[in-house]
Amino acid sequence: MTPTITAYNWAPDEGRGLVRDMRVRWALEEVGQPYQARLLNWGEQKEPEHRARNPFGQVPAYEEGGLVLFESGAIVLHIAQGKPGILPHESEGRARAIGWMFAALNTVEPVVWDWVMASFVERDKDWSQARLPSVEARLHERLKELSAWLGGKDYLEGAFTAGDLLMIAVLRNLSRSPLLKPYANLVDYVARGEARPAFGRALADLRAGLIDEVPEQFRKPK
Amino acid sequence: MTPTITAYNWAPDEGRGLVRDMRVRWALEEVGQPYQARLLNWGEQKEPEHRARNPFGQVPAYEEGGLVLFESGAIVLHIAQGKPGILPHESEGRARAIGWMFAALNTVEPVVWDWVMASFVERDKDWSQARLPSVEARLHERLKELSAWLGGKDYLEGAFTAGDLLMIAVLRNLSRSPLLKPYANLVDYVARGEARPAFGRALADLRAGLIDEVPEQFRKPK
Repeated sequence: MTPTITAYNWAPDEGRGLVRDMRVRWALEEVGQPYQARLLNWGEQKEPEHRARNPFGQVPAYEEGGLVLFESGAIVLHIAQGKPGILPHESEGRARAIGWMFAALNTVEPVVWDWVMASFVERDKDWSQARLPSVEARLHERLKELSAWLGGKDYLEGAFTAGDLLMIAVLRNLSRSPLLKPYANLVDYVARGEARPAFGRALADLRAGLIDEVPEQFRKPK
Repeated sequence: MTPTITAYNWAPDEGRGLVRDMRVRWALEEVGQPYQARLLNWGEQKEPEHRARNPFGQVPAYEEGGLVLFESGAIVLHIAQGKPGILPHESEGRARAIGWMFAALNTVEPVVWDWVMASFVERDKDWSQARLPSVEARLHERLKELSAWLGGKDYLEGAFTAGDLLMIAVLRNLSRSPLLKPYANLVDYVARGEARPAFGRALADLRAGLIDEVPEQFRKPK
């Protein structure tokens, strides 16, 4: 049965390829699972039809037979458990890989997302510039720790897993900033992930579904 | 084999019973798994000995035979998969429960934690008060959505799962604030979780391990 993912047909310039459906597309490509995409116009994610898929009105959602799943982390885990390729078979290695999935989403992404909010969404607020050094200090603490763990390894536990997939997806939010630059091994780590053929196919498919025109709702400031 | 968790022997008054080892203790109690606790003095979490367990220098960590695991979400999932009790057996229900685990940690906890940071850790910063309304607005959006989903159900998918365990653990960070009050069903939901015998045993064990005296490092402001 071909699963269906729900994503947007549009993203702001700085967000193209960074929306969380990218993680799910990448995982599907890594395990060789064909899928179809339902693309929403901006705003439709908050309509009742999509809230039935995801109560928080976010993308991605994932449907497969009777299963409706939301949260990119849960969807990637479901895909990884369903077909071999991005989770070790033996139980300790599998638990470690899942540990890195949670580390990406619950330890690293919150500080990355705080920086994205402070630097883009909230950048024009009076207090935003004054706050930014605190945000960047917390982010550097995590990046330094992650860099120290990675050391000279290709991936967090040696071989590529769903933990790396999510960690690299999170770190890609920093790619256009100078924040990652002090950590050469993290820069290489992100590039290593992006060089994977499955990543390239996922990004091409994501981009093929995006329209160029900014939807009406985004043209007028709120 | 009896697993060992690593936690702190101390927490500030407002943090007692809210540190993330509580989630792991609660899950262990729900599935009836005895465990032992290694309690760190404040500061020891950043020493090399503990960083070998968790590269980010956080608690909890979990050890079982040769497995060393970190990230409370990953540990709760590992416990839930190892013994019956807090994850449905059939695959769709199990995937949904795991979906709520990720929703708790990746969609709800970041806005809750942002509020905790703004209200406690950063409260004396010049910009903190000006920023608080934005933080609270984002939090209320998520709480409203969660409340709408929960409706009149006891738990997010009807019966208690590891998804509720993590969601309630996250919401407990708001218990001493008025933020949860507009959502009567969420207040009841948290109380329902806290009334579970396994929760009570976990909290009692956590508290029994706490020392009263503030460690030296916390007496002098940084």
